[in-house]
Amino acid sequence: MLSVLNRVPRASLAARAATRLFATEHNPPTRFESASVWQNEPSQPKLVTDSVPGPRSAELSKEIADFQDPRTHVVVADYAKSRGNYLVDADGNEMLDVFAQIASIAIGYNNPELIALAKTDEFAIAAMNRPALGSFPSNEWSETIHKGLLSVAPKGTPHLFTQMCGSCANEGALKAAFMAYRARQRGEQGIKDFTSEEMSSCMKNASPGSPDLVAMSFKSAFHGRLFGSLSLTRSKAIHKLDIPAFDWPAISWPTMKYPLEEYASENAEAEARTIALVEETIIAQKKKGKDVAALIVEPIQSEGGDNHASPSFFKALRTVTRVLSRTVFMIVDEVQTGVGATGAFWAHDKWKLDHPPDFVTFSKKMQAAGFYHAEGTRASLPYRNYNTWMGDPMRALQAREMIGFIKAHGLVAHTAAIGDELYSSLTDLSKRYSGQIHNLRGKDCGTFIAWDAASAEQRDKFVGEMRKVGVVMGGCGDNAVRLRPMLVFGDKQKDVLLEKMEGVFKNMS
Amino acid sequence: MLSVLNRVPRASLAARAATRLFATEHNPPTRFESASVWQNEPSQPKLVTDSVPGPRSAELSKEIADFQDPRTHVVVADYAKSRGNYLVDADGNEMLDVFAQIASIAIGYNNPELIALAKTDEFAIAAMNRPALGSFPSNEWSETIHKGLLSVAPKGTPHLFTQMCGSCANEGALKAAFMAYRARQRGEQGIKDFTSEEMSSCMKNASPGSPDLVAMSFKSAFHGRLFGSLSLTRSKAIHKLDIPAFDWPAISWPTMKYPLEEYASENAEAEARTIALVEETIIAQKKKGKDVAALIVEPIQSEGGDNHASPSFFKALRTVTRVLSRTVFMIVDEVQTGVGATGAFWAHDKWKLDHPPDFVTFSKKMQAAGFYHAEGTRASLPYRNYNTWMGDPMRALQAREMIGFIKAHGLVAHTAAIGDELYSSLTDLSKRYSGQIHNLRGKDCGTFIAWDAASAEQRDKFVGEMRKVGVVMGGCGDNAVRLRPMLVFGDKQKDVLLEKMEGVFKNMS
Repeated sequence: MLSVLNRVPRASLAARAATRLFATEHNPPTRFESASVWQNEPSQPKLVTDSVPGPRSAELSKEIADFQDPRTHVVVADYAKSRGNYLVDADGNEMLDVFAQIASIAIGYNNPELIALAKTDEFAIAAMNRPALGSFPSNEWSETIHKGLLSVAPKGTPHLFTQMCGSCANEGALKAAFMAYRARQRGEQGIKDFTSEEMSSCMKNASPGSPDLVAMSFKSAFHGRLFGSLSLTRSKAIHKLDIPAFDWPAISWPTMKYPLEEYASENAEAEARTIALVEETIIAQKKKGKDVAALIVEPIQSEGGDNHASPSFFKALRTVTRVLSRTVFMIVDEVQTGVGATGAFWAHDKWKLDHPPDFVTFSKKMQAAGFYHAEGTRASLPYRNYNTWMGDPMRALQAREMIGFIKAHGLVAHTAAIGDELYSSLTDLSKRYSGQIHNLRGKDCGTFIAWDAASAEQRDKFVGEMRKVGVVMGGCGDNAVRLRPMLVFGDKQKDVLLEKMEGVFKNMS
Repeated sequence: MLSVLNRVPRASLAARAATRLFATEHNPPTRFESASVWQNEPSQPKLVTDSVPGPRSAELSKEIADFQDPRTHVVVADYAKSRGNYLVDADGNEMLDVFAQIASIAIGYNNPELIALAKTDEFAIAAMNRPALGSFPSNEWSETIHKGLLSVAPKGTPHLFTQMCGSCANEGALKAAFMAYRARQRGEQGIKDFTSEEMSSCMKNASPGSPDLVAMSFKSAFHGRLFGSLSLTRSKAIHKLDIPAFDWPAISWPTMKYPLEEYASENAEAEARTIALVEETIIAQKKKGKDVAALIVEPIQSEGGDNHASPSFFKALRTVTRVLSRTVFMIVDEVQTGVGATGAFWAHDKWKLDHPPDFVTFSKKMQAAGFYHAEGTRASLPYRNYNTWMGDPMRALQAREMIGFIKAHGLVAHTAAIGDELYSSLTDLSKRYSGQIHNLRGKDCGTFIAWDAASAEQRDKFVGEMRKVGVVMGGCGDNAVRLRPMLVFGDKQKDVLLEKMEGVFKNMS
């Protein structure tokens, strides 16, 4: 089944680890060629059916429809045959994938190092003996985390709470923020000092034990789909309709004009208005007897349309959340932006904040999920932020291996470089097909690039036409196209993408 | 590393599958001996350090403390050495584990069939290419689900939504219930017919788009720790303090006297009062302009103290949720009770309802998580109940393999039989140590057995003393001890458990 893959004997991984160290510390390669890892990665899309999805894919979707909603299917995939940047579907169509499972595949399909990891005893034992991590962690947990997730901990947030998915990660961080906020109010210092009224009222979901604390987010933000995270999410009505929500405020995201640098002063004004609104809202909520305990923000609003803001905006946001009488905890949601795609390991690294965020959440490309947090935000008592699994050690092993691969191959620097060239080529393309590419954005953001089509219909048509020529793409916001290639996206794939895009634009014009 | 395990060559699994079919359909064995699977499973606990946790465990907890809260650690475990019913810790202590990672290990540590599965290409590919399942499911998904999770679908709930954990499963079911409830109110028939007011108000977390719908649960219930599920949870203040909650009602669980059959008439009265309260609350909420859209219930309240009720109670609950003017969706939370431990595959199978529940949620021992649901409760539009991962195909493969193992070895019937004997022996023990075992419960519930200690301190002392003689146990509620052994718990382990308990009771008396 894996005959299409290059098998990497486990023994060679130690050698690679040594190379890694050298590459990372002394001479990071700035370009990566996926052919060096997948000798059999396609060089071009290859379609073998008249339409995509083809008949086999359609048949399998129909089987799935017996038990699960198939209306969101794009294609049914054959992961055994997929490799590198190419997704192969159930009919054998080989497609360049620049959507990467909604931005959640980091280092390619069937990456041989990951497949080798999967075949180890270490991985099998972790997979098949999932612990209640908070109570019975394994003797390998500390080492796995130190070598993996902690080795990329954002500055200022050296603590880690592992969870299962992005929504859980955001909710876990939010719970920690609420608890830390109340602890500060009480002057609680890791001491059990709840009142009996708090103890009894929380059992009735009533104040003061279940307090009227508020979490603030931005309009068009996406932070997940569970009840707390969905209350923060404001991207699309279809996500939110009919689901009860917390009465929490959302502030308009600054309306930016692109390219950002051409409209620097107008953009700065828009950002200043938003910052003022954040401050006013915190004060207004306080007057209503509601404390804003946390503010959550994406470095680039992704699902909501790839909406950018400047480092100055985020600096001002950090300032405004800190200067008021009571510090509002700042949660940076890096679920989609994290793990290298913006040309920095964490998108917020580029803001160069004087005071780091209190919480940084991650999932998707990390495969493991959770949040990093600052000193002083661990719950005052055990079992307050706790659950059965508290993440998954197997995914932590996968993250460790991926982080090693990313460092060894310099994939963050590579993505920054390839992204710059891609952005430049797309700028050219936008001049030649000005009706097709509006508001190109993502300069200096690696391959985290997007643009608007003329309308939602035009966007959907473009994505559909690209699929017909063998490229899997994704949309976001009302009428945007977002590029979310993997970190192993290189020159060859870039050329294919641009060529296919131009062909489609020609036909659409 | 796996030298302690019996390796099962993959080729033999087909042969086992054939045996399985025979065993299941013609001659299910009612007793299982774990020695038939693990030749090297310990026959007795063996402690090699003076205290548990020992020095190595303590040292590793200290390392973990650098980044994660260690205060909830019981021991740091060595999963590579653990096997069958025995957990081995980092110091080499071999302990009989009747807590099983908070009731989430079903068929033993390092079950050779699961380890063999982990080493297959199928598993490696699923692990390392996790899809956005709603959009790019794999060509094996339908078959995996049909052979696994769907083969044990509860009666009346043939649809499946896969998720990542128990909290997510309950929240997913709750979202589906809210959507289905509003769809019925609207007379929506899979048609997009939201009002513009609904579309705009939900973006502000306001009614009518974010409706004031209500989910009802029971006091002392546990349904998870995310914002929606935590609003349903009413087990302990420490889980809920400082976290904003929805204003949803909770009804007192009937106060039952044990053994249930001895107090049949008093218990029936208590249950009738609760049913009346459920009905009154639904009507009272309606008068306040709030519709109860869903009621969630555990077959046995587990975390909250192993609180039982009779099949008649659940029948009445189903009736009362159906006879009112608008049907209240019934969600049965089988996260802890599911997958055989009660002597039925699903605990609610025993109620023999005329009309099945609308939703049944699962996680823990299934390793995969999600909810089964009835016809007519799929969201009216695509992307309404959706997220990036929508579960994990690798965990679905594990569930398929475990379900096969459970069927092949008749582990549900086995657990029913061993549980009956265990309950009977514990009844004897409770007579001889009447100060130690109060309110023994779980008759005819397999090994899902619990009792109260005289106080919380006595319970904690007992659990601590049992650990000192090499048995890992768990508490629940205020002062209960709960048995949550695996399905591979057999005669030998039962004898060890009873002998060690008696020893501890002797010393405590």
